[in-house]
Amino acid sequence: MQHKSHEECVSRLRKIEGQVRGVTRMIEDERYCIDILTQIHAVKAALAKVESEILKGHVETCVENAINSGDAAEQRQKFAELVDVLGKYRP
Amino acid sequence: MQHKSHEECVSRLRKIEGQVRGVTRMIEDERYCIDILTQIHAVKAALAKVESEILKGHVETCVENAINSGDAAEQRQKFAELVDVLGKYRP
Amino acid sequence: MQHKSHEECVSRLRKIEGQVRGVTRMIEDERYCIDILTQIHAVKAALAKVESEILKGHVETCVENAINSGDAAEQRQKFAELVDVLGKYRP
Amino acid sequence: MQHKSHEECVSRLRKIEGQVRGVTRMIEDERYCIDILTQIHAVKAALAKVESEILKGHVETCVENAINSGDAAEQRQKFAELVDVLGKYRP
Repeated sequence: MQHKSHEECVSRLRKIEGQVRGVTRMIEDERYCIDILTQIHAVKAALAKVESEILKGHVETCVENAINSGDAAEQRQKFAELVDVLGKYRP
Repeated sequence: MQHKSHEECVSRLRKIEGQVRGVTRMIEDERYCIDILTQIHAVKAALAKVESEILKGHVETCVENAINSGDAAEQRQKFAELVDVLGKYRP
Repeated sequence: MQHKSHEECVSRLRKIEGQVRGVTRMIEDERYCIDILTQIHAVKAALAKVESEILKGHVETCVENAINSGDAAEQRQKFAELVDVLGKYRP
Repeated sequence: MQHKSHEECVSRLRKIEGQVRGVTRMIEDERYCIDILTQIHAVKAALAKVESEILKGHVETCVENAINSGDAAEQRQKFAELVDVLGKYRP
């Protein structure tokens, strides 16, 4: 799907790629474990922001299209997908 | 809303109420902290099962009604509510 | 174990017991699912505060005792328990 | 710190770097949002495995050294760090 937020997400993901490379270097440089864990936590927080962005775009575009289509089967699928993908985060 | 799973949820919640009372007693009896934390974790896991049950009932009933109504505003609200309530669980 | 924060925790847990009873009533009164889910989320957040309190007391008292005892086996167990109980929360 | 698991972690992180690049490509190729979210979830699960590995190495090496040193201040710091870094994961 084409969303306005794509460039923003791509830019964030390139930074995250660099952050992951940074974590690899921290391990190779034998840096302190707790500092490495803190950095991995930061990578996950950055990924969570990308998720929020994509989720927002999904609701504004794909979900909105499903609503406007008036296609009940399509809407049902959109709900099921959302519950499924968001349900993964419940502890 | 009236859902088939209500009795199941009420029964689970009564057990959870007892579990919470059990945690209170553990603290009053000066039980070991780690055992108390483990028990609180079990309470949260039990609450998560009730959530799953309610979420399932919501999709099968309230969301399904919104789809069948063909009311776009109603559907839009159902999506927004789901994203909001499930989004709380993302770390 | 005896900790200063016990009264605080017991008081919080009594409130949580009432909150759980409130959720049961919401279901019996056929309240809207999303409102019930929001309330369950509040119960879990309240439980998380009790956990933090107990964890803090554990470190200040039980862990501190293990450190002061100079007993390596005891310290080893305290670390293992902490990693185990806190590790449950990692997604 | 030097841990036995370093090579394993570095190898996992190189794969994760590739996975992040894959997510970027999915966005550029305008793939379906839900598939992208599922893939980001997989990246976070892979990072969680690296965390577990590093945490295990930390306890076996750095924490074990602190215990064997008999240095109470050092042990106290190790506990505080663990609670701090693991506490970040509590919902």
